[in-house]
Amino acid sequence: MILNGKYSGLFTDHYELTMAQGYFMDGRENLTASFDYFFRKNPFGSGYAIFAGLQDLLEMISDFHFDTASIDHLNKIGFKSDFLEYLKNFRFKGNIYSPIEGEVVFSNEPIVRFEGNIIETQLIETLSLNVLNFQTLIATKASRLRRSAGDKIVIDFGMRRAQGMSAVHGSRAAVIGGVNSTSNVYSAYLYGLTSTGTQAHSWIQSYNDELTAFRKFAKAFPKNCVLLVDTFDTLKSGVPNAIRVAKEMEERGERLFAVRLDSGDLAYLSKKTRSMLDEAGLSYVKIVASNQLDEYLIKSLIEQGSPIDAFGVGTSLITGQKDAALDGVYKLSMADGKPNLKLSDDLEKVTLPGVKKICRYFNGSGMFYADGIMLEDESEPERIFHPLQPLKSSVVSGLKKENLQSKVFSEGEILLKQRSVSEISEYAKERLSNLPDEHKRFENPHIYKVGISSKLMELRNEIVTQRR
Amino acid sequence: MILNGKYSGLFTDHYELTMAQGYFMDGRENLTASFDYFFRKNPFGSGYAIFAGLQDLLEMISDFHFDTASIDHLNKIGFKSDFLEYLKNFRFKGNIYSPIEGEVVFSNEPIVRFEGNIIETQLIETLSLNVLNFQTLIATKASRLRRSAGDKIVIDFGMRRAQGMSAVHGSRAAVIGGVNSTSNVYSAYLYGLTSTGTQAHSWIQSYNDELTAFRKFAKAFPKNCVLLVDTFDTLKSGVPNAIRVAKEMEERGERLFAVRLDSGDLAYLSKKTRSMLDEAGLSYVKIVASNQLDEYLIKSLIEQGSPIDAFGVGTSLITGQKDAALDGVYKLSMADGKPNLKLSDDLEKVTLPGVKKICRYFNGSGMFYADGIMLEDESEPERIFHPLQPLKSSVVSGLKKENLQSKVFSEGEILLKQRSVSEISEYAKERLSNLPDEHKRFENPHIYKVGISSKLMELRNEIVTQRR
Repeated sequence: MILNGKYSGLFTDHYELTMAQGYFMDGRENLTASFDYFFRKNPFGSGYAIFAGLQDLLEMISDFHFDTASIDHLNKIGFKSDFLEYLKNFRFKGNIYSPIEGEVVFSNEPIVRFEGNIIETQLIETLSLNVLNFQTLIATKASRLRRSAGDKIVIDFGMRRAQGMSAVHGSRAAVIGGVNSTSNVYSAYLYGLTSTGTQAHSWIQSYNDELTAFRKFAKAFPKNCVLLVDTFDTLKSGVPNAIRVAKEMEERGERLFAVRLDSGDLAYLSKKTRSMLDEAGLSYVKIVASNQLDEYLIKSLIEQGSPIDAFGVGTSLITGQKDAALDGVYKLSMADGKPNLKLSDDLEKVTLPGVKKICRYFNGSGMFYADGIMLEDESEPERIFHPLQPLKSSVVSGLKKENLQSKVFSEGEILLKQRSVSEISEYAKERLSNLPDEHKRFENPHIYKVGISSKLMELRNEIVTQRR
Repeated sequence: MILNGKYSGLFTDHYELTMAQGYFMDGRENLTASFDYFFRKNPFGSGYAIFAGLQDLLEMISDFHFDTASIDHLNKIGFKSDFLEYLKNFRFKGNIYSPIEGEVVFSNEPIVRFEGNIIETQLIETLSLNVLNFQTLIATKASRLRRSAGDKIVIDFGMRRAQGMSAVHGSRAAVIGGVNSTSNVYSAYLYGLTSTGTQAHSWIQSYNDELTAFRKFAKAFPKNCVLLVDTFDTLKSGVPNAIRVAKEMEERGERLFAVRLDSGDLAYLSKKTRSMLDEAGLSYVKIVASNQLDEYLIKSLIEQGSPIDAFGVGTSLITGQKDAALDGVYKLSMADGKPNLKLSDDLEKVTLPGVKKICRYFNGSGMFYADGIMLEDESEPERIFHPLQPLKSSVVSGLKKENLQSKVFSEGEILLKQRSVSEISEYAKERLSNLPDEHKRFENPHIYKVGISSKLMELRNEIVTQRR
């Protein structure tokens, strides 16, 4: 939480302030409104996403205000003084309904609902999109890395390639999605994560002599000692020197923890390294591998039988490559107590009106079966319908179900129970275990059913017809 | 500058601290070292990059320290108490040599040099990579958008899709690279940028009636009024209503500034909109377009003769898609007063040893001709050589030249003269105008010559031979 207290209200798109002033000048500051946060496409061609960022967002919203410096700035760039008087005392006092972090969510469900007056709900739009889009993107990426790595260790090495300060929230989201630890000490401190790291090539270079460099490092760090073996020649120099140092450590009653491969053909080198270590009686020494890894390369390395125990993943994890952004949006669904929607020539882009809830339905084996979106006051629908193809429907009555959302913010207070990142990560893992495998595969994942109730469909169609 | 003062020393990879403690325990805290920052590939398949991030980086380095909370944390996770005593008083007191921001730079040149003791130069590695990699990426992307947009306006709309807090530095870098303004009020405030923005679809939706919504907005913002015309139907509703409001504004002696298109076929819609506006005598009303734009789409829109006056660019700009990261590295080039390098089986990855400078050579027309990397104390070389193919060389003696780097940090003080973002942006523009067009084209740009002196080559080859 790095913007705390400092110009936080300025962390917004200019147009939010323009609209806010417009509403204020039109005497609409008490007009009620409700906005839905959702995204249109699961990232990475994935069959799901892992919802993340909520706790940071709520803290930032509870701190979202305009200090004197901010007011002065807005005055200087032309905002009106009576509106600025209003902003001086501004705090978001509305309600927020949301799943908890780590929840498995899907495209086109209204995940988070923001309720309040039109000004307060509008002003926090950009911040909400910024935080939820990014952390959900990275948590989802991490969950894919976790899936391909199976029970092997995955470490976030991304800080140096992160998009600047994004590293702070990015490493948190990575751990939520299933990464074990991070190189990022700052985030580890802020969020109680485990940070790890041993040495760079520069350590070896600075001694000029690899064996001396290894010895010095092993002396300094007899526990968890990892030696980087590719500075000169992995198999001819690095691994033999590491073996020598491991043997010396044994004489001192210590154990070399691991060697790290950071270049070359990781499948070939890891196999060769494994046999060399094993032949030297060092079967306990682990192999860490890094170098431009992503979920596909990890999958391939494992399929090739590479005896790698831990994967360090940098750029692709911390920047969410290839996507780099989640396309989350924030759309008005109620105004002045009446259901509202955004039209579009593209029927898929017509939004869902009204105050809604999401029901998650379970099949007989306790696995996620479908999500149903319906009006909040609706009694149990018998079926849910494909939002655009009403001939497609599924019977849901009688199925075990859960309401995905709860009130997490009200009257300026965070209601969400604070959870540690490891608790959130554990929750994500548990929830993902309830998602059938066919939705989790990388290639053309089976599309999870997200349907709407007939009442919601009627409401939407009615408003669309009216408007046209 | 958002990390100022708060746990700043923790903004680092764990291994920097591990190595630092290792050096400290080995009594090497006064060993001198020199590291080079460079990247191996220009981003986006570009023929160049725009160097950015230096001022932020220097401020962060001058503030890089370990407060009590940080020391306590490091103690808790196992760092040794005598090393932590050392860290308590830690400040980076070394020297930094760098081009100024906005400089046109190229892959494989040692752009920034960090000199000092091995501990201080190692500890700031991650921060330096994090800041320079990201801002250089975004400034380069922005310069490409600027190139494709010609003299049209380009606006950064990326804040909501930015990778979290990266928006703060991202919008700054976008303006350095040639974007005119940003939606990001926070960065505009911090860095003296121009922020702009008018209204979202929610404004129109909240009034239910487009004409009323437009009228209210025009009343509230008679100057710079931009109306978003695609909420219902761009050509049947949005543009006719905007024309009606523009006419009403004329009666009040006001002028509608622009309409904004945010969906559909922007080429088709902008042409239709232009004729409708012109036929209504509103040739002064401008057209703003947005919706998943990048440099290629802008180029295509302009080639199709789309009468668009301003482009709003979001995701692709602020996340630097498709790349999302610059592959910058930080490599040891001197240790204990002696030239050093990183070996690799891949000859391209062998680094350049020693304390070096970069000379930029100009051709007879005053355009950039080549960059020569040489040892700092070298007198003028006659030729520069391809780093890997010594048969390729270019005569440079007698050419007009400039030294690209100067000392920007020394003894804990920033020496770099503070410049405004618009000055930096102006400098980037001027420098780019000296780069021949063939290096600026998007498709297979001509590779700019970056050569090394024969003395540097001999030194490198000598060390490589010694080490192998």
